[in-house]
Amino acid sequence: MRRREGDPIICTVDVVLLTLRDDSLCVLLLKRDREPFAGALALPGGYVRPDEDQDAAAAASRVLREKTGLVSPYLEQLATFSGPARDPRGWSVSVVYFALVPSSMLQADPPGVELLPVARLPRLPFDHGEIVREAVARLRAKSQYSSLPVYLCPERFTLPQLQAVYEAVLGEPINKVSFRRKMDELGMLEPIPGELEVGRAHRPAQLYRLRPEYRHALSMVDRGINARG
Amino acid sequence: MRRREGDPIICTVDVVLLTLRDDSLCVLLLKRDREPFAGALALPGGYVRPDEDQDAAAAASRVLREKTGLVSPYLEQLATFSGPARDPRGWSVSVVYFALVPSSMLQADPPGVELLPVARLPRLPFDHGEIVREAVARLRAKSQYSSLPVYLCPERFTLPQLQAVYEAVLGEPINKVSFRRKMDELGMLEPIPGELEVGRAHRPAQLYRLRPEYRHALSMVDRGINARG
Repeated sequence: MRRREGDPIICTVDVVLLTLRDDSLCVLLLKRDREPFAGALALPGGYVRPDEDQDAAAAASRVLREKTGLVSPYLEQLATFSGPARDPRGWSVSVVYFALVPSSMLQADPPGVELLPVARLPRLPFDHGEIVREAVARLRAKSQYSSLPVYLCPERFTLPQLQAVYEAVLGEPINKVSFRRKMDELGMLEPIPGELEVGRAHRPAQLYRLRPEYRHALSMVDRGINARG
Repeated sequence: MRRREGDPIICTVDVVLLTLRDDSLCVLLLKRDREPFAGALALPGGYVRPDEDQDAAAAASRVLREKTGLVSPYLEQLATFSGPARDPRGWSVSVVYFALVPSSMLQADPPGVELLPVARLPRLPFDHGEIVREAVARLRAKSQYSSLPVYLCPERFTLPQLQAVYEAVLGEPINKVSFRRKMDELGMLEPIPGELEVGRAHRPAQLYRLRPEYRHALSMVDRGINARG
């Protein structure tokens, strides 16, 4: 019987960081500074370091911080991608996380960072194209039923701004009345007393924020935000 | 700068195989024949073998087949569990899959195999208790919206039998009328022409099977199987 328990497997993490820019869902890519694929744009990623990482999620946070300076308020395990062909260095396992950040966190892009719309990506190295598609699909599926897109919003926002974020994520318009009913049902928002958004052409709009209990946990509804009928 | 890219990480797969026995959702456990935790009941698992596994899913199928003789018609990646403490041998990554099989596949349990109800599990080694809890939560969440529990059914079944399977998975009774409406909406079943279940106390019931296009893909509904209102 063959025993191959000692064969080396490359163990990495990659991060799909999504944000909105100009009402488009964008992914953060970094120009690779070493082989393989030196010079190509790819997801931020790196080796797991057993001597310092408490788990793969901690490795993903560390890699994101080291390579972009960003700390994401939301980080969820997407899936693990593996096999002999996805990395030219050898048989590899990459535990992939997706992060959501408000665009205000990225107003001065860190050096080497590019934000590209997920709808118009170039061909990416490794299996990063497939990984981004899976991350976007997960974000869309969960956003139908939850408060997830709020992580793409600034700390304070109006309901029309929040609706625009949901529409950018879901890629389709949402009826205003049913959107407001769903937000009530989710119960995750609280008006900020006395705070109105002013200085726009419209009448002042109430500013909202996430209730403290939902800053690190999702609120879910039974039926889709944009369900028909 | 420290470079620890060569540190060994233990890379394994584990399988949470779920099935129904006596209307209870059960998980397959195996008595471990080696250290660590020799003699304890644990999930079937093993090392990824880069020389023969095409990816982690293939490794999970191989491990399940080698250790139990079973080939699951359904295998889905659950999540990856990692860290320095979950395995006494060292920093480890386990890519975990969950499998669903009809109880008829397990009528003669393979040697060393035990099926235990997930509601009454003993303390399990490694982080296998947490892994089983996550698998059951995933199965329940997806079953609210999909045809997933059909993988727990035999090839031919009546609607009352299918409803009992959904009820066992969801852990609560389902209204018969709304259940049948949901099954229509899922559109995944076809009556088997001329085949009725006979020999019971009731009048003969129509036998159904999964439509061919849903044997390897889920059918989904917009609203939960057991949604209120």
